[in-house]
Amino acid sequence: MSKIKVTIWNENVHERAEGAFGDLIRGFYPDGIHNALKRNLAADDLDITAVSLDMPEQGLPDALLEATDVLVWWGHCAHAKVEDALVDKIQRRIQEGMGLIVLHSGHYSKIFRRMLGTSCSLRWREVGEKERVWAVDLQHPIAQGVPETFVIPHTEMYGEPFHIPAEAHVVFMSWYEGGNVFRSGVTFQRGAGKIFYFSPGHETFPIYHQAEVVKVIGNAVRWAAPALPPQQTKCWDKDPALETVYSENPIAKVDTSALHKAK
Amino acid sequence: MSKIKVTIWNENVHERAEGAFGDLIRGFYPDGIHNALKRNLAADDLDITAVSLDMPEQGLPDALLEATDVLVWWGHCAHAKVEDALVDKIQRRIQEGMGLIVLHSGHYSKIFRRMLGTSCSLRWREVGEKERVWAVDLQHPIAQGVPETFVIPHTEMYGEPFHIPAEAHVVFMSWYEGGNVFRSGVTFQRGAGKIFYFSPGHETFPIYHQAEVVKVIGNAVRWAAPALPPQQTKCWDKDPALETVYSENPIAKVDTSALHKAK
Amino acid sequence: MSKIKVTIWNENVHERAEGAFGDLIRGFYPDGIHNALKRNLAADDLDITAVSLDMPEQGLPDALLEATDVLVWWGHCAHAKVEDALVDKIQRRIQEGMGLIVLHSGHYSKIFRRMLGTSCSLRWREVGEKERVWAVDLQHPIAQGVPETFVIPHTEMYGEPFHIPAEAHVVFMSWYEGGNVFRSGVTFQRGAGKIFYFSPGHETFPIYHQAEVVKVIGNAVRWAAPALPPQQTKCWDKDPALETVYSENPIAKVDTSALHKAK
Amino acid sequence: MSKIKVTIWNENVHERAEGAFGDLIRGFYPDGIHNALKRNLAADDLDITAVSLDMPEQGLPDALLEATDVLVWWGHCAHAKVEDALVDKIQRRIQEGMGLIVLHSGHYSKIFRRMLGTSCSLRWREVGEKERVWAVDLQHPIAQGVPETFVIPHTEMYGEPFHIPAEAHVVFMSWYEGGNVFRSGVTFQRGAGKIFYFSPGHETFPIYHQAEVVKVIGNAVRWAAPALPPQQTKCWDKDPALETVYSENPIAKVDTSALHKAK
Repeated sequence: MSKIKVTIWNENVHERAEGAFGDLIRGFYPDGIHNALKRNLAADDLDITAVSLDMPEQGLPDALLEATDVLVWWGHCAHAKVEDALVDKIQRRIQEGMGLIVLHSGHYSKIFRRMLGTSCSLRWREVGEKERVWAVDLQHPIAQGVPETFVIPHTEMYGEPFHIPAEAHVVFMSWYEGGNVFRSGVTFQRGAGKIFYFSPGHETFPIYHQAEVVKVIGNAVRWAAPALPPQQTKCWDKDPALETVYSENPIAKVDTSALHKAK
Repeated sequence: MSKIKVTIWNENVHERAEGAFGDLIRGFYPDGIHNALKRNLAADDLDITAVSLDMPEQGLPDALLEATDVLVWWGHCAHAKVEDALVDKIQRRIQEGMGLIVLHSGHYSKIFRRMLGTSCSLRWREVGEKERVWAVDLQHPIAQGVPETFVIPHTEMYGEPFHIPAEAHVVFMSWYEGGNVFRSGVTFQRGAGKIFYFSPGHETFPIYHQAEVVKVIGNAVRWAAPALPPQQTKCWDKDPALETVYSENPIAKVDTSALHKAK
Repeated sequence: MSKIKVTIWNENVHERAEGAFGDLIRGFYPDGIHNALKRNLAADDLDITAVSLDMPEQGLPDALLEATDVLVWWGHCAHAKVEDALVDKIQRRIQEGMGLIVLHSGHYSKIFRRMLGTSCSLRWREVGEKERVWAVDLQHPIAQGVPETFVIPHTEMYGEPFHIPAEAHVVFMSWYEGGNVFRSGVTFQRGAGKIFYFSPGHETFPIYHQAEVVKVIGNAVRWAAPALPPQQTKCWDKDPALETVYSENPIAKVDTSALHKAK
Repeated sequence: MSKIKVTIWNENVHERAEGAFGDLIRGFYPDGIHNALKRNLAADDLDITAVSLDMPEQGLPDALLEATDVLVWWGHCAHAKVEDALVDKIQRRIQEGMGLIVLHSGHYSKIFRRMLGTSCSLRWREVGEKERVWAVDLQHPIAQGVPETFVIPHTEMYGEPFHIPAEAHVVFMSWYEGGNVFRSGVTFQRGAGKIFYFSPGHETFPIYHQAEVVKVIGNAVRWAAPALPPQQTKCWDKDPALETVYSENPIAKVDTSALHKAK
């Protein structure tokens, strides 16, 4: 069986911050969240590449993007720096069947908002409170082998209302010590591509070293891997009629071929 | 009761084409599809403005867009000419609660694809065949007063697969003489905004003069009108905890205020 | 405008229990939850009838059920006593367009499980802990005029996983002091009928006297009221073809009329 | 890999009818639709049992039902004869994870209506017209290896409106020569169980001998097979609090244990 080609993209900005803030993060993620995740997700069925915004072509040259089965996305303060042309290409790849796993503050990334159409805004608070994650859809592949509930000792709170389409399939919901709730693990499909958003993962806590969190992300990668070769996203050519058309055709005399070239 | 402020936007390109093609269209829509729809939808509860791409600010200056309750959109060959900055503004208004009615070839418009995230591609054929529209959700407000089935004598075929999110709420489905089927009337919600797509309406046929089609569009305008004042789409400010947080806060010593200004 | 005909059904068993348990409940609901709700929901646009299981025809004679626009349901320990024939009739009325509001322990009622097809099981705990309700879909009519979050000081915990169809439209979610979360306000549609489930409301607390809870139920009643006259739920008669059928009909020689009388 | 245990249930009434009608059907299905399907679906990964209503325990003794991974259902004129107690058991098994494939006139079966809550009514016509099936969700496992469109030369028409929950995931849609359309292949999930309804299959045509139809049903069986062992459908026992409850518990003094035994 061929391996699933996973590309973990990270803006990699906080990890390089100066002073105590940067030191704190580097304590958990010395070479960036993307490389920590790469190590923690390592498995025989996964072929993982870790890239970041500061690399050539913003870390996602065409050849890599075309070869990616599942893209994992972590961004926060540099969302605006991701070029629209790259977002266009990622969107097309998702429509063709590439999976997308969006983590934590990626809720505000261009690509996540592009796929959903909503503002993706939410409540937030950063006091290091306790989060308790609950599996809501126990049957979902992403929930397999994950305890029905588990605790993240210190986290940033992300709370409802979370402005995503109401059709979101809820796999996990979170409870926060400070009184909030959140749909913390939700799936979507856009074209042939499966999308999973998972909120745990603030940069100032070692959340991506927690076993349950790594398990969820690993499950999600395997769930989102495309089952089919890339699917068509362009318009069909003009379709022949499959059944006899008996109606008159009042425009038969008009040449509209020039028009449809533009279509 | 205050009137619903409807803005009908049309790219208005085909209507100004030279030769037989333009003559054909002008026979049905002498001053453009937007003005024909404005006249056909006229009612005491609607305050309708008809605009087009060739007007200043592409027909949608900020003041008009802010005052619009429901935006009706017709475009085809000039989708690419609509500026991304305008699409951004329309998207924000929809998230705030403005309704959006997308007609026919608008399936490929930037704003429709922006709201859905999918390619919105479909099959098509232009031989002037017969279409039969069926109401699938008889209870939906958009189907009220519309026959359970009606015929469009000559139309362009739009056929499945239609690449929209599978969660589309199907109000109408269409049968085509040439053997195709289509989810021809579907609704979505994105943020506070209601969206309706309706496929009938090719420019070379007098479809926007057909009573059932006008009835559907009129119903849709009233259904999509916002029930509430514009809703917030921006991120909340940092939220206070509503319940006591007993957990330690290991990041209390780190000043992250600069970081969050960028958020 | 004609009033909405609301029927509040209550099994009315706990309220008549002997001893300290019954005394506790009667302290809050001297003549039953149904009558308390009737008084608390009283408004000019509502015509409310309160009934209970111990009345003739289990409180829902045909004439009342046929005249009911919205049925509010409270049950707990007597679910099994509700006759299947009555459940059949209620189900048909919902399919025709009658609204259904299911409260608290009604999650296990025959009628709620009948409409959803799932087990409707959930986690629960009765220690009188604090519940915090959050509006998730701020635009929903049921959330209008309700604070974005409010506290129920003492409640029975109902927690995820809640075995309802994943398509549930989530209007409210709840946080519990003991660490649980719950989709506490969810809507469904079945046929022409709108359904709302709302979990707050344990009998040993004065929850149906709390303003926010009453506001939610009142909103739900108005949202669920049918917009149309009763809709057909029976099979159509044999349909004539609307378009010409050119194919051969190999069964034309076989008389199947007897068969279809049984259909 | 263990085989998927498939049970094909058929009421087997039409196949035993007297006269020309029965002769016609027996021409296609000499020993019943269930046995024809068993032969046509035969594959190394499937362990298929064909049963019928006239067998002991209506064809589904407990031991067989408990061992069934996917139940295929064909019924028409004998729906009412299926005992409610059996329907209860099948429903529980689906909630636990057993797949259900409902064919053709099974749309009106007790078990299908039980799982969906709607009337499942539809339009119909029996003139032997042509049906054209379209794949709408090309990515769905049930559509793999099936042509994007294929023709059933002679069929009974099933048409919209089809009274199922609007959330139905549409995999196939059908076009009928006589002018109708239908959501002919739709999926649902109820508890851990996957459900697929597929409309082709009238008894007076050799539809279950058509390769594309057999392919769809075979795909559906594999898609609906449970991925997990049987899942809990009963209520949880009383849950301990996972987080400290600081609120007072005003009912601590009341003994409600007797009450909860009944729950």
